[in-house]
Amino acid sequence: MQLALDAARRAALAGEVPVGAVVTDAAGAVLAMAANQVEAGQNPTSHAEFLALSAARAARGSKYLADCTLTVTLEPCAFCAGAIAALRVGKLVFGAYDPKTGAVEHGPRLFTQATTHHKPEVIGGVREQESAALLREFFETRRDA
Amino acid sequence: MQLALDAARRAALAGEVPVGAVVTDAAGAVLAMAANQVEAGQNPTSHAEFLALSAARAARGSKYLADCTLTVTLEPCAFCAGAIAALRVGKLVFGAYDPKTGAVEHGPRLFTQATTHHKPEVIGGVREQESAALLREFFETRRDA
Repeated sequence: MQLALDAARRAALAGEVPVGAVVTDAAGAVLAMAANQVEAGQNPTSHAEFLALSAARAARGSKYLADCTLTVTLEPCAFCAGAIAALRVGKLVFGAYDPKTGAVEHGPRLFTQATTHHKPEVIGGVREQESAALLREFFETRRDA
Repeated sequence: MQLALDAARRAALAGEVPVGAVVTDAAGAVLAMAANQVEAGQNPTSHAEFLALSAARAARGSKYLADCTLTVTLEPCAFCAGAIAALRVGKLVFGAYDPKTGAVEHGPRLFTQATTHHKPEVIGGVREQESAALLREFFETRRDA
């Protein structure tokens, strides 16, 4: 989670909503790391989770990431949760809960749906305060600007 | 839908699950077209819808596709429905319903969720029989192989 938080901090400095994500393998080795890049590419699907998962899959050259853990500072949205299911990610660890757009513990609760054919192990709220504080400070600064 | 069906047929010939997608603008001009490419790239997120939307967004150079229509031969999954919401696609037209993995009229019914902040106009079942027949024939052929 430290690496994900660091990536989120770098995102904030670049004017991006501070969300960072890391993919590690079963041995804990980092396969990929990414920050939110929505503004940089003017691409609303360039979420940290999706970028990190895509890079990890490419690095592996394999179809699935079943033995991998995705660690991300914010509860994933439906798009990213869908990617987690499609790529059969073994474990999801996230920081802050996201009642507005989250799709794991909120809204569609995607991994509770019978139509979601892969459900990762999920651990939410890891370093929740730090993850949430980053987002809060980012939006406060923007409101003041 | 004819172009989407043609793309789906080409996908089947290439050994891919036959799903095709087209993005058109408000004037009906084709911005992008794609077929499912999961096997080609060994990438379970290379769905026709996501590929077509990504290409259309890139072609446009804009963040959103609010005036665009995504036409796809199969009801989108959660990942693709999440991308549709993120990219604020104006209208979704799909062919076959997908009770197994669909996320629009089945499972999470993503566009009915309060946490989904953009909901496109949705028209399902357009040339449903042809779209479904393509998929059925593809899986029958593979079972027999």
